[in-house]
Amino acid sequence: MQHYTAPIDDMMFQLSAFGYDEVSKLEPFEAFDLETARMFLEQTGTLASEVLLPSNRDGDKEGTQWDPQTGEVTIASGYEAGHKALAENGYYGLTADMEHGGGGAPITLGTLSKEMLMSGNKSLSMCPGLTNGLIEALEAFGSDEQKEMYLPKLASGEWTGTMCLTEPHSGTDLGLLSTTAEEHGDHYKLSGTKIWITWGEHGLSENIIHLVLARLPGAPAGIKGISTFIVPKFLPDGSRNGIACTGLEHKMGIHGSPTCVMSLEGAEGWLVGEPNKGMRTMFIMMNAARLFTGLEGVSLGEIAYQAALSFAKERRQSRAMARSKREEGQAADTILVHPDVRRMLLDVKSTTHALRGLSIFISANIDLSTHHPDEAVRQDADDLVALMIPIMKAYGTERGFKNVSDAMQVCGGMGYTTDGEIEQYLRDLRIAMIYEGTNHIQALDLVGRKLALHDGRLYRVFGKRVRDAIAAAQGNEATAPFAAKLGEALRDLDQVTMALGKRAAGDPEVMGASASTYLTAFGLVVCGFSLLTQANHAVSSGTDERAKLGLTRHFFNRVLPEIEGHFAILASPHESITQFDDADF
Amino acid sequence: MQHYTAPIDDMMFQLSAFGYDEVSKLEPFEAFDLETARMFLEQTGTLASEVLLPSNRDGDKEGTQWDPQTGEVTIASGYEAGHKALAENGYYGLTADMEHGGGGAPITLGTLSKEMLMSGNKSLSMCPGLTNGLIEALEAFGSDEQKEMYLPKLASGEWTGTMCLTEPHSGTDLGLLSTTAEEHGDHYKLSGTKIWITWGEHGLSENIIHLVLARLPGAPAGIKGISTFIVPKFLPDGSRNGIACTGLEHKMGIHGSPTCVMSLEGAEGWLVGEPNKGMRTMFIMMNAARLFTGLEGVSLGEIAYQAALSFAKERRQSRAMARSKREEGQAADTILVHPDVRRMLLDVKSTTHALRGLSIFISANIDLSTHHPDEAVRQDADDLVALMIPIMKAYGTERGFKNVSDAMQVCGGMGYTTDGEIEQYLRDLRIAMIYEGTNHIQALDLVGRKLALHDGRLYRVFGKRVRDAIAAAQGNEATAPFAAKLGEALRDLDQVTMALGKRAAGDPEVMGASASTYLTAFGLVVCGFSLLTQANHAVSSGTDERAKLGLTRHFFNRVLPEIEGHFAILASPHESITQFDDADF
Repeated sequence: MQHYTAPIDDMMFQLSAFGYDEVSKLEPFEAFDLETARMFLEQTGTLASEVLLPSNRDGDKEGTQWDPQTGEVTIASGYEAGHKALAENGYYGLTADMEHGGGGAPITLGTLSKEMLMSGNKSLSMCPGLTNGLIEALEAFGSDEQKEMYLPKLASGEWTGTMCLTEPHSGTDLGLLSTTAEEHGDHYKLSGTKIWITWGEHGLSENIIHLVLARLPGAPAGIKGISTFIVPKFLPDGSRNGIACTGLEHKMGIHGSPTCVMSLEGAEGWLVGEPNKGMRTMFIMMNAARLFTGLEGVSLGEIAYQAALSFAKERRQSRAMARSKREEGQAADTILVHPDVRRMLLDVKSTTHALRGLSIFISANIDLSTHHPDEAVRQDADDLVALMIPIMKAYGTERGFKNVSDAMQVCGGMGYTTDGEIEQYLRDLRIAMIYEGTNHIQALDLVGRKLALHDGRLYRVFGKRVRDAIAAAQGNEATAPFAAKLGEALRDLDQVTMALGKRAAGDPEVMGASASTYLTAFGLVVCGFSLLTQANHAVSSGTDERAKLGLTRHFFNRVLPEIEGHFAILASPHESITQFDDADF
Repeated sequence: MQHYTAPIDDMMFQLSAFGYDEVSKLEPFEAFDLETARMFLEQTGTLASEVLLPSNRDGDKEGTQWDPQTGEVTIASGYEAGHKALAENGYYGLTADMEHGGGGAPITLGTLSKEMLMSGNKSLSMCPGLTNGLIEALEAFGSDEQKEMYLPKLASGEWTGTMCLTEPHSGTDLGLLSTTAEEHGDHYKLSGTKIWITWGEHGLSENIIHLVLARLPGAPAGIKGISTFIVPKFLPDGSRNGIACTGLEHKMGIHGSPTCVMSLEGAEGWLVGEPNKGMRTMFIMMNAARLFTGLEGVSLGEIAYQAALSFAKERRQSRAMARSKREEGQAADTILVHPDVRRMLLDVKSTTHALRGLSIFISANIDLSTHHPDEAVRQDADDLVALMIPIMKAYGTERGFKNVSDAMQVCGGMGYTTDGEIEQYLRDLRIAMIYEGTNHIQALDLVGRKLALHDGRLYRVFGKRVRDAIAAAQGNEATAPFAAKLGEALRDLDQVTMALGKRAAGDPEVMGASASTYLTAFGLVVCGFSLLTQANHAVSSGTDERAKLGLTRHFFNRVLPEIEGHFAILASPHESITQFDDADF
């Protein structure tokens, strides 16, 4: 039996710590003050634990079924109730413009709600997740007609959305994609095969709107010749369009989410945005998708932690090492007393809190970058988002996977059985390191693109924020030791960043060989920044002080030092990788 | 479709590197020279890839079924053929004494054969694995009558064996176990419930011989009051004994292996060894079981590596970063050219080779400790085995799990599907960090027991071996840089070991908080020792030189430096763990 307690208090704490008051002062968000936010989060937490979670295990066990005769896909029982509750309570259009039926909520609250919904049922919550992304893309690049036609139905959850990028020979390398689109009156006819299409076919909604990447005749090769099209399952006249599910993937986890092969045979589609500029549309969807993929590590890390903690408080094995901690009259102590169990729980909890903070930091900056009246503020916010997104995606999922595995370890054999809760979380989470751009693609985005942008401006903006947090922490006895450690880590990261840049000038393969390790090191610094910000807030507000300082202390003492290993690897020659003889693999 | 190529050449190389010639000179093993060893390994490799592997996926999909009416357990189709082949080819009694029908092979060859059998089908190979352990326990502590009665049937695979330790409230803490044994004429009557009994019930063999831990009336509390008993499924007169399977666990992986709840209701049992000295018997079985559990990381790391490499050679995505490495006339290069793919493959391959070497090093020392005429040699060998077993078990499974996950990452989305091969390996392997004593229990065994034994003698014996390998490497230009790096790591480990010992004197919880991290650091040094030994052998024998030196270089440049992170954690205060307030978890 799976359980989940929404971490509302920590979310409220972190909203304050990461400047939600600034977000709620923005003109479109004036209705979303802290008090409203709490009510909303509580409602979402209840939905996650009482409506979504009960079908989570069913989804895993029942999976999805594809009917080869009709192409229809059957979803797990119980998911329909979850979908309806999500639709009726506005989660499909939560952060969408109110002009077209959306809820108009800040992304910041959208992110926190997503964390809870994914904790409750990751597979099902991917359906509104994809739909949210489609809405954002249409808001940015759709024509007025398209907006009026699609947005209200998507925001209400009557229709749902997908992203159709990947093809059998074109995954990481989108430039290879070969689906074609030919002009046909006011629309286009698309043909090709798409794979890995999440929620590509199902019966939960009246219609499914696919955003499809394809090539126009004579389009340039590579990613500069990609256009995006709206391809609905049902055409405006109610007839079936030429797009159909022709198979499902069988996966290690997220069994409840249908992962479809979609075949397009002259499917009618409508161009979104300009021809050959499809990557712009996709990047709108991908930025949000990468943030939320990183958040999967927080979501499943959180619920796995809760399961492990609950087990650790009940299970009795062996005596405490310190005699004073032994419980009299018992043959064994609860395992929460054992230092190694505490170590694992604290590793998980501290990094989960750190990454939750990062998700809020990014989201608040998305809101600021979109709506703040001051251009300088918008630009800083935009820089921070661009730099942090690949770290959130890759480090969030890498650490999250380790965290769920550690939570399983706390539970011993029970954690490995399907009677326990955690083995599903481990299976469900593993894909997050792969999809929405593998973690290495994120690392290349960080190193090869984001660090270079505007002559290193993004890194400088981030560095300033870290130094601000350090300065704020230095004046207080409780936080000063953390400030010193983060300062040292930042200086080391500065040096490693410069040293790598120099080495890369001489050998283009340096970045490929080192980017993933570099991102992990950067991720640890970012987690340190996140926790220091939280510790500063705990001290200045007098809220949750003992717990936050305890977690932060643990992170700086026993987690952040991992970074020494990553730095040592980055300082070593990389030629053992790039010059290894192919025949010797 | 799963594939496996037995790594015979590397095994032969490593047998020479780790002194198999000494083993084959021992009196009982004179028939097992290197040439015979190769024939045997080749035969085993064929069995693993052609007989065991074909049913590996079936076992995963079909699982095991328990019939509540009869208590019988149905095994996957295809397993019977595998079991028969294993039995007919002598794998159930491979290393057992020839006096009682065993094959008399050195443990060293047993270990290499186990690696391959587990690569082929981990679930099925656990059946001979447990039986091997039971044979060893009976050889050591069984009466002559017991030996004659059980050993020949176990060695032939007509009967199979189990270890019945765990009970619902007694897992890690065996002292809590409560199964009772009461004297009843020449035998005992046992009652209680055992869980997690691997291959506890099945129809593959004519009889199942359970080795059961239980308490005699009035036995001392804790582990000093445990005795071991033989409890057969069928009694000598052919009637059914009072032990039955009353349920199966449902697990994340190893679906093909029946994990049974066994209920004993007045089951007839025969004491093995002395009353209340059952832990001695168990340690015989556990030592071997821990070595082979660590080996799971090598087995599945190896086959996952093969799958990932094969994918990386076929899959084309994106262009090589170095222009000179781009393949003309192709839209994209094979992903083997991408530095991050190479990094992951080399991380996996170098640590897999290192841990294979460790398994051979341990096994050869087991053979020496048992059969060498010189007592000083036997003692050194015994010390090395005792020190290395917890490292092999814990670091082998920890690194193996990371390796299989990295192999999955190489394959991207394909690695996550059940069409790929790797997702099963990841699920099958995760339990290895938990069973046979959780990895933290291994760490406590290392730190709290093995380091302290004989005033630190084990560590000194190991240190001498490492320094010998370093000395041998210093004279050669190719290996001298590795020697310098390993020397530095060993000096650091020496210091950390002493520093931890000092801190532990003041606070008993230091060891608990640090043991797992310490074991990981120690594991890296051991891997360095293993690869340096292999590099030395490559140079001195002129065999496989480029490949081994390349792997060793990669390990010392880009894997061993991880140790800096572990050392930095160990140097930090541990009180953030032990003094964290319980209410704040």
